[in-house]
Amino acid sequence: MQAMGEVRRAVRGALGRLPDDVRRAPLVVGCSGGADSLALLLAAHAERPGGVVAAIVDHRLQEGSTDRSEALAAAVRARSIDARVHPVTVDGPGGTEAAARRARYAALAAARPHPCSPVLLGHTLDDQAETVLLGLGRGSGARSLAGMREWDEPWLRPLLGLRRDRVRAACGSDPVPWEDPHNTDPRFVRARLRAEALPLLDDVLAGGVAEALARTAAQLREDDEALTAWADRVREAARDGNTLRVDVLGEVPAAVRRRVLRAWLLESGATAVTDAHLRAADALVGAWRGQGGPRLPGGLDVVREHGRLVPARPG
Amino acid sequence: MQAMGEVRRAVRGALGRLPDDVRRAPLVVGCSGGADSLALLLAAHAERPGGVVAAIVDHRLQEGSTDRSEALAAAVRARSIDARVHPVTVDGPGGTEAAARRARYAALAAARPHPCSPVLLGHTLDDQAETVLLGLGRGSGARSLAGMREWDEPWLRPLLGLRRDRVRAACGSDPVPWEDPHNTDPRFVRARLRAEALPLLDDVLAGGVAEALARTAAQLREDDEALTAWADRVREAARDGNTLRVDVLGEVPAAVRRRVLRAWLLESGATAVTDAHLRAADALVGAWRGQGGPRLPGGLDVVREHGRLVPARPG
Repeated sequence: MQAMGEVRRAVRGALGRLPDDVRRAPLVVGCSGGADSLALLLAAHAERPGGVVAAIVDHRLQEGSTDRSEALAAAVRARSIDARVHPVTVDGPGGTEAAARRARYAALAAARPHPCSPVLLGHTLDDQAETVLLGLGRGSGARSLAGMREWDEPWLRPLLGLRRDRVRAACGSDPVPWEDPHNTDPRFVRARLRAEALPLLDDVLAGGVAEALARTAAQLREDDEALTAWADRVREAARDGNTLRVDVLGEVPAAVRRRVLRAWLLESGATAVTDAHLRAADALVGAWRGQGGPRLPGGLDVVREHGRLVPARPG
Repeated sequence: MQAMGEVRRAVRGALGRLPDDVRRAPLVVGCSGGADSLALLLAAHAERPGGVVAAIVDHRLQEGSTDRSEALAAAVRARSIDARVHPVTVDGPGGTEAAARRARYAALAAARPHPCSPVLLGHTLDDQAETVLLGLGRGSGARSLAGMREWDEPWLRPLLGLRRDRVRAACGSDPVPWEDPHNTDPRFVRARLRAEALPLLDDVLAGGVAEALARTAAQLREDDEALTAWADRVREAARDGNTLRVDVLGEVPAAVRRRVLRAWLLESGATAVTDAHLRAADALVGAWRGQGGPRLPGGLDVVREHGRLVPARPG
């Protein structure tokens, strides 16, 4: 079956790019029962017979989720693949979607049989495109558009280069895939991006939008990595106790200075840093006429004194 | 009138950021007769009475365009603003939209009364957002998402930070603004982005999409400038005749290497360079196992010989 061949090649390629100790460890595959993660699981099992465990997270948010999780585990075991169900409690700040995600990732990380084991996730090129569009809505530059990485320890996403249609075609019907109703529920932003926004953009821009978004994400991630590494060197050179030397900051491009300031503000106790905060802090370097700096969430003021940017706690 | 106050402030701010010789030269305002460019013209005239000339390009593509252009010039002159009509011939490669744009920009540049004169254009924050979305469809990273600059000699776009609605509110009805039917014709990509895609994204992502796209464009432009300057230094360090030294390229991050290779390929005679070409050329540096390199449009092959990347003309 050609589609399964593509998925297996993608899994083999991604495993081949892993560090040696990770590549040799037993694999965990996060398995929701959806067609994407089942195709990933079957491909990983075909590549590593006996070396794969399916981790099925039971979020306990929907009626019957425990029964469905156990039935999925049984169907997976019937294909000679080890499977475990991990019940979690979804709570904490930020809404149900965010809380479910936190609980799921924590359970998957804990499911690893070996400290080096990677956890394989079934995100496709279409998921990547949706993530980039979500990031566009935040408008915080390369960082929010850079999408998901293939390898972000311990997470491995071998299918980021494949379209969702191809992955689903590889899945077959044993186990029978299950479509989470959240994926098509228009109350969820991602479901509407998938069902409405991406198809419309694809129509208006004459096709190829998902691939273009994924390509953009890959390039912006490399851009951000290069600039962040540069900013780390500048931050060390500019550091003077808990202050930063303005003369050093003044010598580097705005894109680097913004990253230096962002990292320094977070390390100084700011709990959130927006584009407007960064522009105000940057004005203390390049457009200083005696003005004060921004006040940041976390109760942090930034001021310029004796050629240094100084973090200050208001009165 | 509050909206006109905002437009005037934006014009004043943009003029204030110009180099001295440009700021002192007489201003040209590109004027289509649309509400955006009329608001810009009136604001520029209010800021610089007697120092502004309206340049009205007659594309001669629609019935009555010459009469309409002359009537607009008369209405502008009735407001005590100098105005000239510039008839152009729209032809050449790439479709009507692209050809009209080339002819328009050439006529506007030629309309300058002084070699330093800036040409003011009425692009708003909404135009910037549309440009970023168009760039997303191309998927070539920061360069295609960076949008338009405020100052890109001789072009000055003072309204990039203002929403279209605010600019139009500043326009009034003397002269009566004219809406180009192309702006709402669904056969044009930009018209559909404006009428369909941006409103849908704004609805799905709960607002602020145009501002987020504009913010992203500004950040990515700074990123690209910093990385391009870095790449220019690396290209000089790696240059050996018309070849590039692999050892020098191997020391810099992928984002920088990609920009070095792109500039070098274009200067070596490639007529177009895609992401795939760059990845293949880059593999000659970091993943070389004796393979050949990409063949590029313009009849250029890239090969690796004696630790150098060499541009070659196939036999």
